[in-house]
Amino acid sequence: MQISDIREATASIRSNIRNAYVDFSQMTVSVIAVESDVMRHGKPVTGYGFCSNGRYAQGGILRERLIPRLRAAAPGALLNDAGDNFEPRKIRNTMLANEKPGGHGDRAVAAGALDMAVWDLVAKLAAQPLWRLLSARYNNGRHDEQVMVYPGGGYYYPGKGLDRLQDEMRGYRDQGYKVVKMKIGAVPLAEDLPRIEAVMALLGGGGDLAVDANGRFDLETALAYGKALAPFSLFWFEEPGDPLDFTLNAELAAHYPGALATGENLFSLQDARNLIRHGGMRPDRDWIQVDPALSYGLTEYLDIIDMVEAMGWSRRRLIPHGGHQLALALAAGLQLGGSESYPGVFQPFGGFADDTVIAGGMAQPGEHIGIGMEAKATMFAEILRLVGG
Amino acid sequence: MQISDIREATASIRSNIRNAYVDFSQMTVSVIAVESDVMRHGKPVTGYGFCSNGRYAQGGILRERLIPRLRAAAPGALLNDAGDNFEPRKIRNTMLANEKPGGHGDRAVAAGALDMAVWDLVAKLAAQPLWRLLSARYNNGRHDEQVMVYPGGGYYYPGKGLDRLQDEMRGYRDQGYKVVKMKIGAVPLAEDLPRIEAVMALLGGGGDLAVDANGRFDLETALAYGKALAPFSLFWFEEPGDPLDFTLNAELAAHYPGALATGENLFSLQDARNLIRHGGMRPDRDWIQVDPALSYGLTEYLDIIDMVEAMGWSRRRLIPHGGHQLALALAAGLQLGGSESYPGVFQPFGGFADDTVIAGGMAQPGEHIGIGMEAKATMFAEILRLVGG
Repeated sequence: MQISDIREATASIRSNIRNAYVDFSQMTVSVIAVESDVMRHGKPVTGYGFCSNGRYAQGGILRERLIPRLRAAAPGALLNDAGDNFEPRKIRNTMLANEKPGGHGDRAVAAGALDMAVWDLVAKLAAQPLWRLLSARYNNGRHDEQVMVYPGGGYYYPGKGLDRLQDEMRGYRDQGYKVVKMKIGAVPLAEDLPRIEAVMALLGGGGDLAVDANGRFDLETALAYGKALAPFSLFWFEEPGDPLDFTLNAELAAHYPGALATGENLFSLQDARNLIRHGGMRPDRDWIQVDPALSYGLTEYLDIIDMVEAMGWSRRRLIPHGGHQLALALAAGLQLGGSESYPGVFQPFGGFADDTVIAGGMAQPGEHIGIGMEAKATMFAEILRLVGG
Repeated sequence: MQISDIREATASIRSNIRNAYVDFSQMTVSVIAVESDVMRHGKPVTGYGFCSNGRYAQGGILRERLIPRLRAAAPGALLNDAGDNFEPRKIRNTMLANEKPGGHGDRAVAAGALDMAVWDLVAKLAAQPLWRLLSARYNNGRHDEQVMVYPGGGYYYPGKGLDRLQDEMRGYRDQGYKVVKMKIGAVPLAEDLPRIEAVMALLGGGGDLAVDANGRFDLETALAYGKALAPFSLFWFEEPGDPLDFTLNAELAAHYPGALATGENLFSLQDARNLIRHGGMRPDRDWIQVDPALSYGLTEYLDIIDMVEAMGWSRRRLIPHGGHQLALALAAGLQLGGSESYPGVFQPFGGFADDTVIAGGMAQPGEHIGIGMEAKATMFAEILRLVGG
């Protein structure tokens, strides 16, 4: 058994949305196929992966560093001990050989996309849904039948007023979501408050509303927003300051009684550990959003779960960013706190399989073999077009 | 005045050396030319830059993100207020537009190489050595006539015994260096100690010897090395643990009385600030080695100097990694603590201008216009071959 081909390409997910920090008019993701020499139904069993939105495609790093190292691996070096499947950790260590420690950025995104394809392949070779394979291997067979999901929405875009913001949130509710999220911080607090209040009026309070500042605030602004938001008892207040300003986060946590959420821009176990060590995060209420498809992949995420639990946190406080089938599988199979969802943005890569049932704010992971890429029709058509072989 | 062309290419700096973490058999760097429409002596004034060793070339990020943003800039948008030169901070903000916060890795390396070329161009247009321009703009005209330099050497390579290690160090002394550095940590402590003692025997003690573990040690090993090294009163003990494990660093600092040095794998102001906030670094003895050519460039480094001083540190505690003319210019013009030097490794990109005088462990920055790329003949020939236009 061996990897017979690895193909990568860049896909556009451009749109006219923006958050408080970036616009997405030029956004791209890397798409990857890892093809094995195992034939089923006359075709090679192939895993597919992509990186999450927000950090651009990583074709250079994939083509120049990660993929050549896998191509140069000795026969059998990437297999499990039984020799009947690939071993993701061996693949991860091989693709990242001769990479220095620290500096976890674009490299982690490239590895995350490649690692996703590897896990899709591994689950397909095992003829199981990924969430079921994860449950059996790493969670004593336990899993969640349904996963808390929330739409990452409420973006700013040209001409979007309060009515359209409310319409968007009403749409999410109609689709079966309970908790919804909106962006804040691209306009001053005095302009953001009516936006927040308009959505709360629709929802009947703040308990099902998360707000996301995308790392824009300095300490003073974060504290001012915190003071204004506290009475709303929001579901969470996300990424108030720079993702690496752990002191800001700790200071806000000391003043803001509600839940904080952050971590989508921390790309390694080391960075996530620093958030827990230095960020003042409270294990009884706060949320950690590290995204496996930006952070060296599911393989590293398994280590992050171990680290989090070793530091006295419950894995239920982990809700991965990303809004894709990988995050949903992780959350179901490893019993995390939930998963982001993208019902309307970052198409065609945002969102779950087409047949995913969402009701009462919960999603079921489905029985698709592998990650379930094939069950999101527009996305899979694009994947085949780009890296179908 | 405008940028008329930006060219980039990948150069090999492969060698058979290794440190405790990586080998350099596949190592590459990005090389960049930023050409202006200003003509002198019949040729366009052009700045050249490259990234420091260790993190590979970044052609993908340069070609797909950073360079296109500069090409798309409005006429005049990259100039200073007087319109008589380019403004590096405007160029930096333009090349990094729509980049999310956090995740400071390969992107910072790409930006560092491009920013180096921009500063070379700016100093050439001002017809000054870069160190003199920096002194005038940011240091009230003060500068250092000579800069403490030390060779980043003592690598492991096949067949290298104690005799050859001593020969190498003797060679550095013969070249005018005083402080020398050697790698540790690729073999167990019991095998490293004879290496260290052999070099100390040559030097007549440990005061001029720095040792570098390249981030390899866990806490237990770092403490064991610290205990063994303490009696030697070494010049410094560099990068004992993972560069982001600030708690390990703080724990070692609480036990090891000698100087620690770290920071070459921290690629942003935020990461460097976390080292000072959380790493237990002692402003009276420890050293911070952030490398501008891996960390968004000299422009970000100016902010790092401000941050360091705002936190009560002296800029004399900053000794950039990198071993090139940019670091030497920074150290001289902004009066830092010194600069690494690569008299024998990472050729042709390692090391200073060919005519650099090194005596008593000090180097003079020279009067070359710009950064002085043209004055390192083998390197500049390679730069011209790759991006000469």
